[in-house]
Amino acid sequence: MLEELKREAYEANLALPKHGLINLTFGNASAIDREKGIFAIKPSGVAYEDLKPADMVLVDLDGKQVEGNLRPSSDTPTHRRLFLAFHAIGGVVHTHSSNATAFAQAGREIPIFGTTHADYFYGSVPVTRKMTAAEIGGGAYEWETGNVIVERFLLGNFDPADYPAVLVNRHAPFTWGKTVAKAVEVAVATECIAHMALMSLQLEPGLHTIEPELLNKHFKRKHGPGAYYGQGGNC
Amino acid sequence: MLEELKREAYEANLALPKHGLINLTFGNASAIDREKGIFAIKPSGVAYEDLKPADMVLVDLDGKQVEGNLRPSSDTPTHRRLFLAFHAIGGVVHTHSSNATAFAQAGREIPIFGTTHADYFYGSVPVTRKMTAAEIGGGAYEWETGNVIVERFLLGNFDPADYPAVLVNRHAPFTWGKTVAKAVEVAVATECIAHMALMSLQLEPGLHTIEPELLNKHFKRKHGPGAYYGQGGNC
Amino acid sequence: MLEELKREAYEANLALPKHGLINLTFGNASAIDREKGIFAIKPSGVAYEDLKPADMVLVDLDGKQVEGNLRPSSDTPTHRRLFLAFHAIGGVVHTHSSNATAFAQAGREIPIFGTTHADYFYGSVPVTRKMTAAEIGGGAYEWETGNVIVERFLLGNFDPADYPAVLVNRHAPFTWGKTVAKAVEVAVATECIAHMALMSLQLEPGLHTIEPELLNKHFKRKHGPGAYYGQGGNC
Amino acid sequence: MLEELKREAYEANLALPKHGLINLTFGNASAIDREKGIFAIKPSGVAYEDLKPADMVLVDLDGKQVEGNLRPSSDTPTHRRLFLAFHAIGGVVHTHSSNATAFAQAGREIPIFGTTHADYFYGSVPVTRKMTAAEIGGGAYEWETGNVIVERFLLGNFDPADYPAVLVNRHAPFTWGKTVAKAVEVAVATECIAHMALMSLQLEPGLHTIEPELLNKHFKRKHGPGAYYGQGGNC
Repeated sequence: MLEELKREAYEANLALPKHGLINLTFGNASAIDREKGIFAIKPSGVAYEDLKPADMVLVDLDGKQVEGNLRPSSDTPTHRRLFLAFHAIGGVVHTHSSNATAFAQAGREIPIFGTTHADYFYGSVPVTRKMTAAEIGGGAYEWETGNVIVERFLLGNFDPADYPAVLVNRHAPFTWGKTVAKAVEVAVATECIAHMALMSLQLEPGLHTIEPELLNKHFKRKHGPGAYYGQGGNC
Repeated sequence: MLEELKREAYEANLALPKHGLINLTFGNASAIDREKGIFAIKPSGVAYEDLKPADMVLVDLDGKQVEGNLRPSSDTPTHRRLFLAFHAIGGVVHTHSSNATAFAQAGREIPIFGTTHADYFYGSVPVTRKMTAAEIGGGAYEWETGNVIVERFLLGNFDPADYPAVLVNRHAPFTWGKTVAKAVEVAVATECIAHMALMSLQLEPGLHTIEPELLNKHFKRKHGPGAYYGQGGNC
Repeated sequence: MLEELKREAYEANLALPKHGLINLTFGNASAIDREKGIFAIKPSGVAYEDLKPADMVLVDLDGKQVEGNLRPSSDTPTHRRLFLAFHAIGGVVHTHSSNATAFAQAGREIPIFGTTHADYFYGSVPVTRKMTAAEIGGGAYEWETGNVIVERFLLGNFDPADYPAVLVNRHAPFTWGKTVAKAVEVAVATECIAHMALMSLQLEPGLHTIEPELLNKHFKRKHGPGAYYGQGGNC
Repeated sequence: MLEELKREAYEANLALPKHGLINLTFGNASAIDREKGIFAIKPSGVAYEDLKPADMVLVDLDGKQVEGNLRPSSDTPTHRRLFLAFHAIGGVVHTHSSNATAFAQAGREIPIFGTTHADYFYGSVPVTRKMTAAEIGGGAYEWETGNVIVERFLLGNFDPADYPAVLVNRHAPFTWGKTVAKAVEVAVATECIAHMALMSLQLEPGLHTIEPELLNKHFKRKHGPGAYYGQGGNC
């Protein structure tokens, strides 16, 4: 069932190593069918070169595996938590891409320093607080990982459409989008802007973030009713 | 019409990802026919792998689209501004290449530290001032982007032939040349010297720029009447 | 003899340049047959592109070459020392991969800053003390290299299964695993986490290592009786 | 004439971009026939993809072009100066490889921090003094570039066999070896150790160079009468 959804998830998973976002086997992508309330996700610990569309595991929003012989990614509860909290998203991607992960390990948001960043995000890429020992050890670690992400967005009053990525403290980035293909693109952007931010900080350790007028201009140029970038498709 | 011009622009656009200068879909190249006053430029937001020569959009120096079904790059007014101000250039390239963009984000020129740089530029790669809220939000953002570049060259009394690139503050580099192929080569050089300058600064934070005699020697070795590098072609 | 063992060692050696871990010809991998007490190792100074499975040299745990026309890797005594001290390991890998070697040259352990690291190691990657002039010049340099590694593990009370890599001071990393294929994977991980640690330190020079509860969670998720990552195979 | 010599020089020139040592068209390799006193060198400003063995230009030790329709590399007098001063070398390579050039631009030697470096050099990679305005502008710039290299080796009492590379201040590295293939290998090593030294310095800004006993051990392990690395070939 849901062959098209599985193919989308499969292709998104394959795109991750193609874009250089995967270190080792860390990383996974999922795509949801909102009508059925079912998402397709990468199986756990399977090498990318061995992956087939039929290997994608189907899971519903209660966390029940509804199809697939393989165990789903161990990060499945985090994906599920995000699909439940962020109603407009159609896909989630998780990577350990090097530069973004360096910020996550340092517990630092990725500061918004230029228009490349502003074309994708309406501000700096948020970082969660550290997880507590109870959250980590209480038996629902990956679900709680989703919870600290959701908490960060509530506290910051961030719209997931304006901030399509987060860094989990000490861990790595999660990204999302209307489609899983868009979530992959945001994962590429997140790694790219992290790399450039690191170098800009090396040049100017006290560098301020981008001016609000420039942020508004670039974000709105590509998002929302006044967008005029591209051929009319929404990004 | 202007098939050869469109092919030149097309090939320059394809060369950008080939040289690793493109992050995401950021980047575009244009080539002008000075007699006709028409330039060919990449369409907006089209993936490089899908691009065909016939997709290039033809625009005249008044900004009127004279051929092409696709919308031209949203950066078209910046290209047009540069073609109007810098009479001797035949092509313009814009990238968000990582190292050069890191300098642009930090609002720093790329300091000229060695002969690699001096073979392409007659000094440090200039950076514009920040754009004002009026320039950004007044409805002609991309045209005004061109204006701050031109302003920087007037204030610095820079000859565009001696300084074939600029960093737009908070944004990224633009480069140019007698041909669009030459502008691509300068874009490669700009990223390369930005990378090396960043590392030299890491080794010596207070490093001074190159001595004038060495700058003169290397720049003149490749440019102008006394040039003796290469097989007699002008670069 | 031991064709399968030689093939394993051969494939592990070939995997090193494929993963970008080899600078120049530095690097070698070995696989042991514990029953026979014989290991297969790369010949010394042979280019990776010329290597054949039959070139692998067989050496016993007394250091006697039992098969092969080529001289074994000059690092053979280090491998032998590790096979003798760490009874549960089936393969050893040595590289001069750039980021890990940068830590080794600086005499610094690779600090454990995030979950990527914690999925492979139960703490920071240890670094040996510097070797003495007597150890270096006494005629058994490579054997003594193994000795300082073993000494470090005794002093630190490290289980080689929990800490599957070490940095030899001023030199470079050695890694190991139940199989030589696993040792290759750890070599990839070691380079990757070194790269990310360097960048995290650039962002936060005084960054503390990961919290014990998160370390425990991630390491145990992939290792030992409670592991639930992957498809049931032990890593 | 000298078809074999031209082929060697050709292959060395092609190896430079293959190893990622070439930025733009910067770089050239030459090979000498000591009996005839003639060397083969890359023509000036020709793209690597267009190069053919027959394009190599033959020049004698007086600087006279003895064969070839193309102009030789503008760096030819530097190669010639080195062939005249360093009698035992058979090939010279010049690159603008990024990390080594970053050290050259900063006027810093590449400090010897580990065994990777010690396997190729008997100490830090020297850097020349800056060239004077007279040396630069006096009409023999490339010859004088060779002169400051030779001066550095005389002042430092360096044997070119022990120190097979130099950084020209504000410029970039030159390397050499018994054969031009060996000079290429040293160029790879020089870039590699520059990269690792930069990272080690980032970790420990005041890091001391390697201990003499370890330097001796590693250099002698691969060079001279007691060498036991490799299959008996001298490196």
